[in-house]
Amino acid sequence: MAKDQDFAGLILPFGGAFDAGRGVREGGEPSPREIGAKGWALDRAYRAGAPVPDGFIISAAALPLLAQGSDEFDHQIEAAVAALESATGRRLGDAVDPLLTVVALSPETWLPDLTPPVRGVGAPVLDDLFVLPPLALIDEIELLRGVAASALNQTTDDLDSAIDDAEGDELAALRAVLAKAGVGDWPPGKTLKAVIAGQAARWRDKRAQRRRVAAGASERCAIIVQTAPCSSASADDKISASGRLSLHDAEDGRRRLVGEWRSHQRGAEDPARPSPIRFDGALPEPVATSAVGDALLEACEVANAALPTPREISFVVVDGAPWIVGARPLRASVAAQIKIAVTLAESGRITQADAIRRIDPRRLEDILHRRIDPEAQRILIAQGLPASPGAASGVLAFSAEEAEKRAVNGENVILICEETSPEDVHALHAAAAVMTLRGGLTSHAAVVARGMAKPCVVGASGLRIDHRRRVLIAPDGGEHAEGAAATLDGASGAVLQGALPTKAPELTGDFATLMRWADDLRQLRVRANADTPSDAETAQRLGVDGIGLCRTEHMFVDKSRVTAVREMILADTEADRRAALEKLLPIQRADFEKVFEIMSRPNAKGAKSGSEARPVTIRLLDPPLHEFLPQTARGLSDLARAMGQSIDKVTRRANELREFNPMLGKRGCRMGVAYPEIYEMQARAIFEAALQVEARTGVTQKPELMIPLVSAVRELELLREKLDAVAAAVREEQSASFEYQIGIMVETPRAALRADALAAVSTFFSFGTNDLTQMTYGLSRDDAGRLMRDYVERGVFEADPFQSLDQEGVGELMQIAVERGRAANANLTIGLCGEHGGDPATIAFCEAAAFDYVSCSPFRTPIARLAAAQAALASGRRG
Amino acid sequence: MAKDQDFAGLILPFGGAFDAGRGVREGGEPSPREIGAKGWALDRAYRAGAPVPDGFIISAAALPLLAQGSDEFDHQIEAAVAALESATGRRLGDAVDPLLTVVALSPETWLPDLTPPVRGVGAPVLDDLFVLPPLALIDEIELLRGVAASALNQTTDDLDSAIDDAEGDELAALRAVLAKAGVGDWPPGKTLKAVIAGQAARWRDKRAQRRRVAAGASERCAIIVQTAPCSSASADDKISASGRLSLHDAEDGRRRLVGEWRSHQRGAEDPARPSPIRFDGALPEPVATSAVGDALLEACEVANAALPTPREISFVVVDGAPWIVGARPLRASVAAQIKIAVTLAESGRITQADAIRRIDPRRLEDILHRRIDPEAQRILIAQGLPASPGAASGVLAFSAEEAEKRAVNGENVILICEETSPEDVHALHAAAAVMTLRGGLTSHAAVVARGMAKPCVVGASGLRIDHRRRVLIAPDGGEHAEGAAATLDGASGAVLQGALPTKAPELTGDFATLMRWADDLRQLRVRANADTPSDAETAQRLGVDGIGLCRTEHMFVDKSRVTAVREMILADTEADRRAALEKLLPIQRADFEKVFEIMSRPNAKGAKSGSEARPVTIRLLDPPLHEFLPQTARGLSDLARAMGQSIDKVTRRANELREFNPMLGKRGCRMGVAYPEIYEMQARAIFEAALQVEARTGVTQKPELMIPLVSAVRELELLREKLDAVAAAVREEQSASFEYQIGIMVETPRAALRADALAAVSTFFSFGTNDLTQMTYGLSRDDAGRLMRDYVERGVFEADPFQSLDQEGVGELMQIAVERGRAANANLTIGLCGEHGGDPATIAFCEAAAFDYVSCSPFRTPIARLAAAQAALASGRRG
Repeated sequence: MAKDQDFAGLILPFGGAFDAGRGVREGGEPSPREIGAKGWALDRAYRAGAPVPDGFIISAAALPLLAQGSDEFDHQIEAAVAALESATGRRLGDAVDPLLTVVALSPETWLPDLTPPVRGVGAPVLDDLFVLPPLALIDEIELLRGVAASALNQTTDDLDSAIDDAEGDELAALRAVLAKAGVGDWPPGKTLKAVIAGQAARWRDKRAQRRRVAAGASERCAIIVQTAPCSSASADDKISASGRLSLHDAEDGRRRLVGEWRSHQRGAEDPARPSPIRFDGALPEPVATSAVGDALLEACEVANAALPTPREISFVVVDGAPWIVGARPLRASVAAQIKIAVTLAESGRITQADAIRRIDPRRLEDILHRRIDPEAQRILIAQGLPASPGAASGVLAFSAEEAEKRAVNGENVILICEETSPEDVHALHAAAAVMTLRGGLTSHAAVVARGMAKPCVVGASGLRIDHRRRVLIAPDGGEHAEGAAATLDGASGAVLQGALPTKAPELTGDFATLMRWADDLRQLRVRANADTPSDAETAQRLGVDGIGLCRTEHMFVDKSRVTAVREMILADTEADRRAALEKLLPIQRADFEKVFEIMSRPNAKGAKSGSEARPVTIRLLDPPLHEFLPQTARGLSDLARAMGQSIDKVTRRANELREFNPMLGKRGCRMGVAYPEIYEMQARAIFEAALQVEARTGVTQKPELMIPLVSAVRELELLREKLDAVAAAVREEQSASFEYQIGIMVETPRAALRADALAAVSTFFSFGTNDLTQMTYGLSRDDAGRLMRDYVERGVFEADPFQSLDQEGVGELMQIAVERGRAANANLTIGLCGEHGGDPATIAFCEAAAFDYVSCSPFRTPIARLAAAQAALASGRRG
Repeated sequence: MAKDQDFAGLILPFGGAFDAGRGVREGGEPSPREIGAKGWALDRAYRAGAPVPDGFIISAAALPLLAQGSDEFDHQIEAAVAALESATGRRLGDAVDPLLTVVALSPETWLPDLTPPVRGVGAPVLDDLFVLPPLALIDEIELLRGVAASALNQTTDDLDSAIDDAEGDELAALRAVLAKAGVGDWPPGKTLKAVIAGQAARWRDKRAQRRRVAAGASERCAIIVQTAPCSSASADDKISASGRLSLHDAEDGRRRLVGEWRSHQRGAEDPARPSPIRFDGALPEPVATSAVGDALLEACEVANAALPTPREISFVVVDGAPWIVGARPLRASVAAQIKIAVTLAESGRITQADAIRRIDPRRLEDILHRRIDPEAQRILIAQGLPASPGAASGVLAFSAEEAEKRAVNGENVILICEETSPEDVHALHAAAAVMTLRGGLTSHAAVVARGMAKPCVVGASGLRIDHRRRVLIAPDGGEHAEGAAATLDGASGAVLQGALPTKAPELTGDFATLMRWADDLRQLRVRANADTPSDAETAQRLGVDGIGLCRTEHMFVDKSRVTAVREMILADTEADRRAALEKLLPIQRADFEKVFEIMSRPNAKGAKSGSEARPVTIRLLDPPLHEFLPQTARGLSDLARAMGQSIDKVTRRANELREFNPMLGKRGCRMGVAYPEIYEMQARAIFEAALQVEARTGVTQKPELMIPLVSAVRELELLREKLDAVAAAVREEQSASFEYQIGIMVETPRAALRADALAAVSTFFSFGTNDLTQMTYGLSRDDAGRLMRDYVERGVFEADPFQSLDQEGVGELMQIAVERGRAANANLTIGLCGEHGGDPATIAFCEAAAFDYVSCSPFRTPIARLAAAQAALASGRRG
């Protein structure tokens, strides 16, 4: 599409007519950034030879001019219209055979159904504001709204409220508005300009802004003015029709014609009722029997071949000739997308890199978990935030105790409670799924459930639990008794009535092929966050490059262990504390042995070339000690009795440990500095386990010890000394040599700023982006749920920074840390182990900053692997 | 002191003897950094003509060589000794008239009594390790320790534990160690070298390290080897004596001879018992009667004149001639220091700038508050952290309720409780002083008490309160009943038994003169943090440049207001919330009127030239709403009853508002964005108050509205719009024009990083360094108390970052913000309003970064003014 001097590059001719008049087009292809996704798809289809009607596009760069109103720009539109009239031989407003146009938004990012196009612009408008030829009511309203908004210089929001205030028939209200503004007298060219301006205003209004922000879409939008390929004089024997057609089944991706067909033939069925198309390879009567069928199929094939992803083609058939009027991406399931991409790549029609580029990694979530049968009838109990995907059925339980009791009796349990804390972990293990009324996407329940790959919904804040009556009270007053059957859908954030059927994920076939290609392309290693041997098994099954975060606190809360942990906390002296830790040592060692052993086995991607285990990064104890004590007075007195200690003393110790802001309290390495014996026990367990597993399997172990919450280099130095001493002692005792690494979790802003000093005494940095985000914003992830939705909807934050890395703030701190860290220690290994490790935008950031790895929940690792491959392609490191 | 090629500049000759041998010295004066504070003082005294014995100094740069041991360096020491022997005509180890030396540490920073000097080195040592001539036992032990540590290549710590293990007579143990090492056979030169090495080891040992860190002292230290000006052949009729003498009274600074005198005269009193010197201008018998007296006085005058601060001169008199062997700074009270400095400056002997440089601003704290009569008998009840200075007597109360009850009855109350929260503010107002068992120096109690200039002690963690029996239980088990008389000393962090007499501060005379000089010199404006009209009065009386932080939440917790605040919080709809806020509007307006009026009056420094009020920065509501609700179930049910609402509803609302990490929760502008009507009410109160006061006083008001906890620019934009709209409405309603400013509190790391975008829509930045420190470290100030002492003592943190700004981390974020903020908005006003605003090191930082102002608690503003003047002098902007 050539840039035309007359239009100063802002109004671009479009489609075939111009070629005829002006010869071959000049210049390169315009980008979606210039002409929007819709315009770009049609342009590509046209270039490949598909029949696309004539028109012109007002480029995204010109949209501000429309808002300001510019005489010069108006003239340019008039010139484009004149060119279009001369090319088609029709005129706007002609009473017999008018040039009718369709005016549509063409945003850079596809936003389906944001604002319908305005059709029939160019039809003669009579004095009483009825439009000829008669349009569908909805089209007529859209046309008049566009005109009115522009005429009155209002946004359509303002206009809407004026119309709402009228409380009457929308069309009548609009006509009144238009009559008052004198629009009835306008020539059709002025109407077209008003509709264009009206569409532009629709793009700027609040509803569109919200949609755009919610979808993370670009702010840019072009406007396309397309000739409607209709004729007021169509012959009876020619087929006239419209419809949509795609070449693949959106559900499973198999090659098959799918769509709908609406005949405009005189004497045809009610034109408002489309007929479905769903045939393997052939079109239905009457299309298939005519030349039109072949031409339409050919046009669809050409358009699909010209575009990077499968399309749903919108067509009209006029006087027996097919026209392509839209080519939006097929809203296919991710399984279908993968099948199509892999099939095309295997047949050589696209490259493996193209196949990888076609799949949105975030959508893999849909196929990695159980999901509710799409045919099942959904009756909503409650809606919250989708915190961990998957689906599970069971009976409702409203407390951790009840959940455990029912689970012991063999029931599948859906635990619904106000919130969870570390001492509820056994209940979380027991439950099939969990929903909390409070908390955000990174609350305790959400993080733990994701780690356990258990469906979870959080922040269902409209709900209440009446614990006395044991009922859940929905926002509408409806009540649901404990023990009732329900199904939780972690993907959508819903809890539904009844035990609905679910389907298992399929991780073989095309999915496995795509993953293999991704693994070949990516530079970043992808590790899993796995706290238990069972998590490690899951990660192993999915084929990870190691474990990037093994949180040891989850190993402490099992019922079998928590007593020893509590003895340690309540100990009066270091000697007593060491005695309690002695009891924990063999349990921790056994945990680590299992994890090391799993990471020593060959995984889905085949064994490593050498004989070295995949790396395991173990974070030393992080949470404040009070998290391991009961939270209630009753719980404390039970504990005192169980431990043969005075209630007074236990309560006093619990009060001493209580904190105003536990997230900013005596946790992480601060606790390690205060009670080095805890970290010493953990280090010993790690080293002894590594030696055991190495002896048993012959696979070399190099455990990585990660120190959390460092803010001063001296903390690290002090603890390194202690840990090195333990290693030396174990080496001496067992007369064995082994290697290990000590690094830090970079999760305070200060650690990022002091990265040079810290890197000098670290082997690796792993960014704990959850905490780093909390501290950079001064916003607790546990408390963010309440305000985050509001903030994101209102655009205060562009996105939830706990889901999508804040590159401007948190990201800058990370870049500072990477730069200073690498300058001080060229061999520094750099990774990321926050929840963001499974977020494609974050992965692209990590690729750009040349990280060594990302680590995320096991079930997000396939997403990370695909995203890492895409990032490598985008960075140009691969391609 | 010339640099000598032979000694490679690391061993410097010292005192008078060398001049005689070598003529005039070359080169510039050595600095305390090279030769330590003791060496530097003696060198200056010598240069000015005072009699200082010969010797040499091993410079601080050479200390590492001593630790390594270097033959070349040993030779250099031998050369220095040889030069000394030739200059004095005596020899080390001579049996008749040995060259005796004193070997002393000379750290860069004065650290009195860190390690005593080793005397008598050079005396002949016999085979059985007895030393001649007999030394004091303590000197002999020191000598032998130094020798032993060096001989065995140990630190003196190691040596100490060896001796401790021996559990016997220390001298015997040392002799055993020395004999085993063969030290008895050493020549005296080797002994001297060993003593030097031993002293160097003392400087490196852990005890010295701890002292150094605790004092914030430099790591550099020189070693001084000085001839002992004694004679084995002193004549009976010559005066031989030693002592200390200063020319000013250390208590009040008046000119007066003070010191002690110890005669070594045969037949004199017991030489171990010194006689005090305390005379106005004359020396006691027998000194005053001889020429020695005049010579000694003259030497003291010369030394004092040569040195920047008054000295306590150590002297010896040998054979009738006085020698100055030390000149350490007089440990004078700050009142004395000020008197001396002002007197000298007024007499023209030093400049005003010199006078300002002489006073440590931090020590002003001692004279700005009431203090306990130094003569009073102190019996400790409990010890905590000194959180707010001053002293007060009263009766003990162990709860907020009890404190208020007793205060109403006219008693002075010392409130002691576990901790305080905002709802205890009325009790804090009622109490004369407060102590909390929990919390750090920036806990709620500490911050509020400092704001109220009320004595406060926090973190007295060894204590317990038995609320049933109403007794306080001390760590030693001692009990103190509620109602007992006590005195709290906020300066030392002690609570003492009984009502002790206290003394009021004197802020006139020399103090006022010094402050006036400081005000003339400083560049930084100094504002006060003042939340109430009463705080503003205090600030006004002390003479501040404005109010840099007026926290509005403290205005909300008064009993008269909290009901309306709670109605607002419990309101179901925005309309109800607005109705409750309507009630608060006139109360807030009245508060602001008083504050504005006070800042419109001329202050201690005289009226402003123009007719504009001193600026007042008002921070819009910051704390999370739940802080205004009762914290207990009982309190909530009382509230429900009082408000005619259901307990269920009130409890539910309180639970909804409860947060896991309130510091990182829905507070500051996040609350303002959620409930803009709160900030709108506050803005209206501010604007209306400003107009009222302007009308009444004729003084122009330009209120500054500060938005707290901003992390995203959109937050600021949203709120600016609302506040600007309120201003426009008030202007319209009152047909009046006024100016105002809107700025932000920079207290999240993200705000610092995004300073460019934020500055574009701000008039000012004010750094909230408390929160910025919390978030940069990931450490809550409320929870830091527990670990901070331990961390600082162990050197994990160099200093408590809540007291002394962390320049490496927090400071870097501030510098980033200043740089980006100024680049985006050249007119940006930059201030600091955290607790650090009264810290001299922070003020130097702010001066260097060209801040416009600092703001701190009213009683710290004199400290800030003096520190600002010193910073201006140091920066070279003034001088």
